[in-house]
Amino acid sequence: MSEGKRSALLPVEQALERLLTLAETTPIKDTKRVALADAHGRVLAEPLIATLDLPPWPNSAMDGYALRLSEWQGEPLAVSQRIFAGTAPQPLQAGTCARIFTGAPVPAGADVVEMQENAEVLEDGRVRFTEPLKIGQNIRPQGQETRVGETVLVAGTRLNAIKLGLCATLGVAELSVVRRPRVAVLSTGDELIEPGQPLGPGQIYNSNRTLLCQWLRQVGCEVVDGGILPDNLEQTRERLGGFDRVDLILSTGGVSVGEADFLGHALREEGELTLWKLAIKPGKPLTFGHFRGVPVIGLPGNPASTLVTFALLARPYLLRRMGVVDVTPLCFPVPAAFVWRTAGERREYLRARIEDGRAVLYSNQSSGVLRSAAWAEGLVEVPEGRTLVEGDSVNFIPLSEVLN
Amino acid sequence: MSEGKRSALLPVEQALERLLTLAETTPIKDTKRVALADAHGRVLAEPLIATLDLPPWPNSAMDGYALRLSEWQGEPLAVSQRIFAGTAPQPLQAGTCARIFTGAPVPAGADVVEMQENAEVLEDGRVRFTEPLKIGQNIRPQGQETRVGETVLVAGTRLNAIKLGLCATLGVAELSVVRRPRVAVLSTGDELIEPGQPLGPGQIYNSNRTLLCQWLRQVGCEVVDGGILPDNLEQTRERLGGFDRVDLILSTGGVSVGEADFLGHALREEGELTLWKLAIKPGKPLTFGHFRGVPVIGLPGNPASTLVTFALLARPYLLRRMGVVDVTPLCFPVPAAFVWRTAGERREYLRARIEDGRAVLYSNQSSGVLRSAAWAEGLVEVPEGRTLVEGDSVNFIPLSEVLN
Repeated sequence: MSEGKRSALLPVEQALERLLTLAETTPIKDTKRVALADAHGRVLAEPLIATLDLPPWPNSAMDGYALRLSEWQGEPLAVSQRIFAGTAPQPLQAGTCARIFTGAPVPAGADVVEMQENAEVLEDGRVRFTEPLKIGQNIRPQGQETRVGETVLVAGTRLNAIKLGLCATLGVAELSVVRRPRVAVLSTGDELIEPGQPLGPGQIYNSNRTLLCQWLRQVGCEVVDGGILPDNLEQTRERLGGFDRVDLILSTGGVSVGEADFLGHALREEGELTLWKLAIKPGKPLTFGHFRGVPVIGLPGNPASTLVTFALLARPYLLRRMGVVDVTPLCFPVPAAFVWRTAGERREYLRARIEDGRAVLYSNQSSGVLRSAAWAEGLVEVPEGRTLVEGDSVNFIPLSEVLN
Repeated sequence: MSEGKRSALLPVEQALERLLTLAETTPIKDTKRVALADAHGRVLAEPLIATLDLPPWPNSAMDGYALRLSEWQGEPLAVSQRIFAGTAPQPLQAGTCARIFTGAPVPAGADVVEMQENAEVLEDGRVRFTEPLKIGQNIRPQGQETRVGETVLVAGTRLNAIKLGLCATLGVAELSVVRRPRVAVLSTGDELIEPGQPLGPGQIYNSNRTLLCQWLRQVGCEVVDGGILPDNLEQTRERLGGFDRVDLILSTGGVSVGEADFLGHALREEGELTLWKLAIKPGKPLTFGHFRGVPVIGLPGNPASTLVTFALLARPYLLRRMGVVDVTPLCFPVPAAFVWRTAGERREYLRARIEDGRAVLYSNQSSGVLRSAAWAEGLVEVPEGRTLVEGDSVNFIPLSEVLN
């Protein structure tokens, strides 16, 4: 293939950049207040600002005894109070110690907690401390984790269990989150039939609908199931126009290939259509456009291509529309357990596993083979123009990072 | 600390092995048939065996022309049929070619597909092929991905979107899955109060409930919210005995520490209680036991300790009870961007991020500080007895691998 043809392919990072820029021009601005228990996977619409110190007061990190080291001469001390977690202590009486338990507030006047293992209770009930002590020991100071007024989570944070737990520690029971994007999912192709139906001649089962509906839900979208698009212009137009308040139409398969490209026709008539030839394999053809103002993304229809383009392009686009800043998945350099002989003009994303610390490929990397992805733990990235020998370092993107 | 004391700590992998063995003695055997759309996160109860070949028939990988190379002399060929995806072709008429589109069945008699870019349509409608051809070219053979009778997914597979997509390609609309484990979640401690309530003296907000309920749901469990356990023996007994058909009682905080250990009392009276001192930091004390025959796991109460012990011990235990074989998260060696001066006797799991390819630690690694985990992208493992200099390789476990 000539240099001229090669340069016509759009590199992955440029495609992503364009999509993110497009996403920023149509942000989802509506917000909603939801209970903590319902906020998993949602995106924070406002920063979370601490309204209390964490911890709210100095507290004991151990079960033991609180005393005032700065006024102590080394003598055994009587126990003047017992402080359980959840109770409010009295100020420490001079010349005494307080029995204290993990998490309990340290009484005013105490400046150290000694753990019970280093304390000896005498017959008269007084306590002798035998190890050297240091002021502040075993005391978690007030505000050690967070101070009132600090921004704890920024707007645009995707809420997972840990972040919700953090909201809980701050006493927050409700959060303002970004409305879920409504995404209409369409499959195209007369050959598709839904699982559970008998397979006729020339027909295959529709898997992209299952894949996309589930991935979209995990990204935090509301899915409008648009079914299989008929291979007919009038019906295509009707279907596209019939979606109620959707933020995106996501289709797989069929835009501008073949002669029966009714989706492409409809977009050209009542919107706009750009066909990108991406330097990505699997997944070269990607469509971006709009229909009567609603953005449309058309992913390639082979399931492994759908996977790669959804994970690397459509998912970050949707996250950015919700205001998420960091849309880059973690990736790790690992040694290849394989040889890659032919330098490709497209960046390849191969379905791979980690075995003995090295990346092993599924035997069949055809874009039609979904089984490769079901077997895989991640995607190995082979850059454009590269060949590899065993042991060469390749980037490995865990699937858990891009499909959650 | 003496060698004697050190050896009393249970290494993480031994603790995990014991828990997995315990899990295998109480597998969840009930199964349920669910629709594909409801099967996400569930565990397959039976192997998925292919009842059709994939692809079901040889099909075209390209838009182009199908011909019979073995009987072709190089002359231009008339087009005798047009084969769209979803249609059943006629056998190829001798001395002709067929117009064919991506995904359409290759007609009987054809042994090659040439892409349209390499074909020239003459004025009389015949097609001339200009490039060298090879038998089988651009044809995806029947059964290339899967053959009838092959085991495509084994029993014990955790179903994610991709695996459900694979079920869909095989026409499967319903699956037999393992019943969700019912897990009762308990927090212990009079100091705990739920978010949204005003904070009294000595009180802190309960975050573990939010964390555990959410994590358990993600693992595929049904959560029975047991609330905050009262610091009172009679009420503790009543609460523990009042759960309806639970498979596990999961508690955080308070077992066998302090003097008001009512959960420990109740277990000793009407069940069994083993206290493990784990060689893990954060998270040393872990309880395993049962109450009237129901398994009980008690995790430490500091939120970072709860996180680490849930992710590394309780989660694999629950997955194994559902029959999941592979419960090991992916982990990757990365260079440390920090110095670790003191060799610990416990294996440390530090909250960390990847920056410029190196593991960076959160400034405050106290087990009470949940903010470290909210900031983190993963856990860095520092083995027992190790010190580190910058650039040393450490294991990094992405949080997405253990909290999904």
